[in-house]
Amino acid sequence: MKPSIPKGTRDFSSNEVAKRNYIFNIIKHSFENFGFQPIETPSFENSSTLMGKYGEEGDRLIFKILNSGDYLKKVDEGLLSEKNSQKIISKISEKALRYDLTVPFARYVVQHQNDITFPFKRYQIQPVWRADRPQKGRFREFYQCDADVVGSKSLLQEVEFVQLYDTVFSKLGLLGTTIKINNRKILSGIAEVIGASDKLIDFTVALDKLDKIGKEGVVKEMLEKGISEEAIVKVAPLFNFSGSNQDKLVSLQEMLQTSDEGLAGVQELRTVVNMIEEIGLASATLTLDVTLARGLNYYTGAIYEVSAPEGVKMGSIGGGGRYDDLTGIFGLKDVSGVGISFGLDRIYLVMEELNLFEEVELPKPRVLFLNFDEGENLSKIKAIKTLRENNIKSELYPDTATSNKQQKKQWKYVTNRNIQFVVTNVDNNTFVLKNMTNGEQITCSLNELISKVQ
Amino acid sequence: MKPSIPKGTRDFSSNEVAKRNYIFNIIKHSFENFGFQPIETPSFENSSTLMGKYGEEGDRLIFKILNSGDYLKKVDEGLLSEKNSQKIISKISEKALRYDLTVPFARYVVQHQNDITFPFKRYQIQPVWRADRPQKGRFREFYQCDADVVGSKSLLQEVEFVQLYDTVFSKLGLLGTTIKINNRKILSGIAEVIGASDKLIDFTVALDKLDKIGKEGVVKEMLEKGISEEAIVKVAPLFNFSGSNQDKLVSLQEMLQTSDEGLAGVQELRTVVNMIEEIGLASATLTLDVTLARGLNYYTGAIYEVSAPEGVKMGSIGGGGRYDDLTGIFGLKDVSGVGISFGLDRIYLVMEELNLFEEVELPKPRVLFLNFDEGENLSKIKAIKTLRENNIKSELYPDTATSNKQQKKQWKYVTNRNIQFVVTNVDNNTFVLKNMTNGEQITCSLNELISKVQ
Repeated sequence: MKPSIPKGTRDFSSNEVAKRNYIFNIIKHSFENFGFQPIETPSFENSSTLMGKYGEEGDRLIFKILNSGDYLKKVDEGLLSEKNSQKIISKISEKALRYDLTVPFARYVVQHQNDITFPFKRYQIQPVWRADRPQKGRFREFYQCDADVVGSKSLLQEVEFVQLYDTVFSKLGLLGTTIKINNRKILSGIAEVIGASDKLIDFTVALDKLDKIGKEGVVKEMLEKGISEEAIVKVAPLFNFSGSNQDKLVSLQEMLQTSDEGLAGVQELRTVVNMIEEIGLASATLTLDVTLARGLNYYTGAIYEVSAPEGVKMGSIGGGGRYDDLTGIFGLKDVSGVGISFGLDRIYLVMEELNLFEEVELPKPRVLFLNFDEGENLSKIKAIKTLRENNIKSELYPDTATSNKQQKKQWKYVTNRNIQFVVTNVDNNTFVLKNMTNGEQITCSLNELISKVQ
Repeated sequence: MKPSIPKGTRDFSSNEVAKRNYIFNIIKHSFENFGFQPIETPSFENSSTLMGKYGEEGDRLIFKILNSGDYLKKVDEGLLSEKNSQKIISKISEKALRYDLTVPFARYVVQHQNDITFPFKRYQIQPVWRADRPQKGRFREFYQCDADVVGSKSLLQEVEFVQLYDTVFSKLGLLGTTIKINNRKILSGIAEVIGASDKLIDFTVALDKLDKIGKEGVVKEMLEKGISEEAIVKVAPLFNFSGSNQDKLVSLQEMLQTSDEGLAGVQELRTVVNMIEEIGLASATLTLDVTLARGLNYYTGAIYEVSAPEGVKMGSIGGGGRYDDLTGIFGLKDVSGVGISFGLDRIYLVMEELNLFEEVELPKPRVLFLNFDEGENLSKIKAIKTLRENNIKSELYPDTATSNKQQKKQWKYVTNRNIQFVVTNVDNNTFVLKNMTNGEQITCSLNELISKVQ
């Protein structure tokens, strides 16, 4: 039976690891450059920390870890005979795999509040697990790369996160991304204006289809969902929402004048938009998008989402926002947080599609020493030691060839691993070095060899 | 209720992450310098991949993941009413957390055998999980750092792993480690000579106490365990095993002359010892230790274990060996492997004890811009952008101080985070820069500021 791995999980080959690390390193470097500090939390948390934080669907998708030992011992017989899987879970499982990095971060902040200097800018790059149905770009184990600030309500941070997205995607060579921004307070304002907050999601979902089904289609859908004609008239400017961010802000200001909260949202967005216009972005575009409503129950201020460059079919490659009561669930009130996340796996797929990994150095030795003559091995190992001390990745083929066939195997290893420099012989500290790229072969000293391959 | 984490797991603060990454990076760089390629495998595997590979005790210590959804649905009522936890596990759990990196690696090699060029030198740095009783230096989640070669029986690799240990520990500044080496074939030879392989573990355990209880104590214990006087006489040279590696090899050669396997082991060790003597080690000592028997059922050739510098009380900080049939458990026969592992957590503790983290750069901004005057913020953000483009970690304190108390809070932030450079004012592109180390304060241009803090 051929061995396999659980669905939704992946093995990563050396080349894949190298490309993923290329992305991780750019994200990490930018996080640190912006003043964020790394933390790490355990892969599994107490179930009580995670359960009830992601809604009913989320609870279902959390991987639970079975208690060790005789886990059934204390379970009530009656309960067992009912076979009620959901009721029994909490009796046989006390730990669960991390579902995201935000809840563990909130737990961390509360638990270590006395050791932390606020405002606390932290980043965290770790895997999370979800028992979701796997599909393209969605896995059961995947990395999240999060940067958050807690303990300050300053909008300068909202500005900084736009810069951070722009910096990372520019450094990755992923030019032409769109950073969509919205504000929960604007959505609340729209809800006020359309007369019912319970219609807000129907409203934004319908509005989001404007490009596809046109204004008439959108209005029709809204009416079907029970939004009144009068309300639709009030928010009509949203149907022609194609101008600059400044144009949109003017329209919103006009439309939301009866909603204090809505106007506060407009003012917040204006601050961010104006600052970014002053500072400038390297390759991304900041776009005000009032249909953006991700994590609606969660965010209280800014909402971000990043889409890949035009022409690439892929869901959002990043997202985030502000949540005014991040740590309240763990008993620490009034700590505002704002943060963003990078979707490593989707960024990887987009970069693969756009051929942006060409400059990544793949893991292989720079120099291979062939092993055709056992008597040369000690000299070769000594030379390799010196090469490595000079940070030149080098290998001696481990088995000595005793036949033509075995020699061919070594040359095949050179070809398969695409190794550029091969040392074929060593004699009296004289090395025969072959450059596989151009076929050039020279006889040289160790020092010459080093400068040749460096 | 104060939130907490499961026992045996840990949160890592920024400083801890920085120090851990310092170790990881040195290990990783050395692995790559020696020609090893990174791979990664999923955190959880199919239970069938892991169960039965680590003995009964190991099976018990593997963390099992509960199936999603109505996991009890298909479990037989009779079985449930028995409350036999062990029998029911396989019905309600199909996945389990990785217990080490070796079995997943064996699975990887078999699964991807057609994509791999052999000999395959891979390294893997990932966490593993064990439901073990936590104690000092032993956790339920911890990292392993493994380097292995599969597909070659050449002893040059045994030599290379000694060099690799020496290189990593030297670079870490962990000078004076002892790399203990033994060979399974020598242990088999001793078993032959003492007349019973089932006495071998009793024998090595007793022998290992030589330093503590002296020769007489050891002999007494061996007799108690049923090892014959005649056998003890034959292996008597082991009681005076204090000379050089060469002396020990001569004694072993003499002692094991009736055992072909034993002699083969002596020959293998001699090859490794001689080569290392020729090449030299930077800071470690290679010591032949016939009491070394870790993973006895597992290893078939060389056995390694590394102990911390003298004076530091800590179990082994690394170990490994050769296993002739690594992938046989997954149906691929005759693939020999040899590898070593670094114990990150213990290395960390040892380095902490020896104050070896002094040179690690802790995560904090190089420059902080105070925020006492909102009107200066745009200029400050623009300056910070330039600093960051020059790879100088910089931050603007997010909230504008509107009182003396709030200004003090910002200075306290500088102190708590131990930030060296502070920009207090910006006026017409003129910056007031204070060096907190010496109190020096200058007024300068942005370019001067950059060269000052770089």
